[in-house]
Amino acid sequence: MEKGQLLYEGKAKRLYATEQEDVLFVAYKDSATAFNGEKKEEIAGKGVLNNRITSLIFEKLKEAGIASHFIEQISDTEQLVKKVEIIPIELVVRNIAAGSLATKLGIEEGTPLKRPIVEYYYKDDSLGDPFITTEHIDILGIATEEEVAQLYRKGLEVNEVLRTFFHEIGVTLVDFKLEFGRDADGSLLLADEISPDTCRLWDEETKQHLDKDVFRRNLGSLTEVYEIILSRLGGHSK
Amino acid sequence: MEKGQLLYEGKAKRLYATEQEDVLFVAYKDSATAFNGEKKEEIAGKGVLNNRITSLIFEKLKEAGIASHFIEQISDTEQLVKKVEIIPIELVVRNIAAGSLATKLGIEEGTPLKRPIVEYYYKDDSLGDPFITTEHIDILGIATEEEVAQLYRKGLEVNEVLRTFFHEIGVTLVDFKLEFGRDADGSLLLADEISPDTCRLWDEETKQHLDKDVFRRNLGSLTEVYEIILSRLGGHSK
Repeated sequence: MEKGQLLYEGKAKRLYATEQEDVLFVAYKDSATAFNGEKKEEIAGKGVLNNRITSLIFEKLKEAGIASHFIEQISDTEQLVKKVEIIPIELVVRNIAAGSLATKLGIEEGTPLKRPIVEYYYKDDSLGDPFITTEHIDILGIATEEEVAQLYRKGLEVNEVLRTFFHEIGVTLVDFKLEFGRDADGSLLLADEISPDTCRLWDEETKQHLDKDVFRRNLGSLTEVYEIILSRLGGHSK
Repeated sequence: MEKGQLLYEGKAKRLYATEQEDVLFVAYKDSATAFNGEKKEEIAGKGVLNNRITSLIFEKLKEAGIASHFIEQISDTEQLVKKVEIIPIELVVRNIAAGSLATKLGIEEGTPLKRPIVEYYYKDDSLGDPFITTEHIDILGIATEEEVAQLYRKGLEVNEVLRTFFHEIGVTLVDFKLEFGRDADGSLLLADEISPDTCRLWDEETKQHLDKDVFRRNLGSLTEVYEIILSRLGGHSK
């Protein structure tokens, strides 16, 4: 599969066309960004780590019966994915209060929520990815009511699988972000990435942050903790 | 009915006990505040206007079968209300994009929404009254699922009555805020006030702002436009 025209460059990935209409080529970058792009840094090795971690997680999800856009990892920093039309909604699923939720509601970070919750954010950089409700989604016309119901169900389903899966490797899944897209048939498919960039992952014993909060909060080396996740997943970066 | 101990002082009103356990005395102040208290001014006559307007609106709602805590207006700036335990949720019902919604979603102010929507804000000054969802309400434990369903229904019901009612006096009901409380039996009762402090009201013909945006956005005399609302409601302030 050959890398064709650059179709899109995001904060952490580049998307290229391939000779196959319905297949894209994803290249993970070494960029780390936070706070809607206000904090930014190049971190050597981050692209490799996120590409490998995401590939392993999408494979695990597939084994559990959850389809995604992921086809296969083809190099250290690259993977092939099915082309989808991304729905401009970031789904955030939370098990434990942390980050913006803890601050917003005045709940101490680390407090378990009595049940997992699903939040929606409107994926629009110029608006700062605002927090929205299903009624806002309806007004914006960015997804149908039936699609939103599916997003909600799929969000909780992915949560159950990932939570169990991370627990097996001694990691608490605090919260995470998902994106979905519509394939050629209009079916919803899990897309984007699932990595320590998009999940809050804490060591079950030590509570160490094994995710992008290390970068956001200047808690040490990002690649060191991403390596911990990758190695517990059974992978290696070199 | 005699004014007893001061129980609570808010930004726009004072609440006093009376000799009757289940009745409170509300005194409207001349204070205008906006942006979570950052902008503040004393405006002579505002208390009289809001007391009269709120009283007239609660009477109209009662005629339409919607109960509230309102008992009766007893002076220029004072009314008696039933004592309720206020639920710390501000319900915002919107018919037209304006204010924070227009900014947040990037929709031009004045754009009609395809249907009325209901938003919830957690009434907590120290947290800045954050925008929340029904799942956050559940986690915070500030209202039951059944109460939230009632709030939603009542919000839309009040909207239908008020929208028709304001239309009859040439005013567009853009959006408004409601608060509810639990009475001694635990039943939900509409509470707080309904006035140009808590509603966006535009003249249907001229689109003139007849509400607190005049103060927020420095568009002229607040009392002049509140007088317009009061006089169209058939009341008078002097």
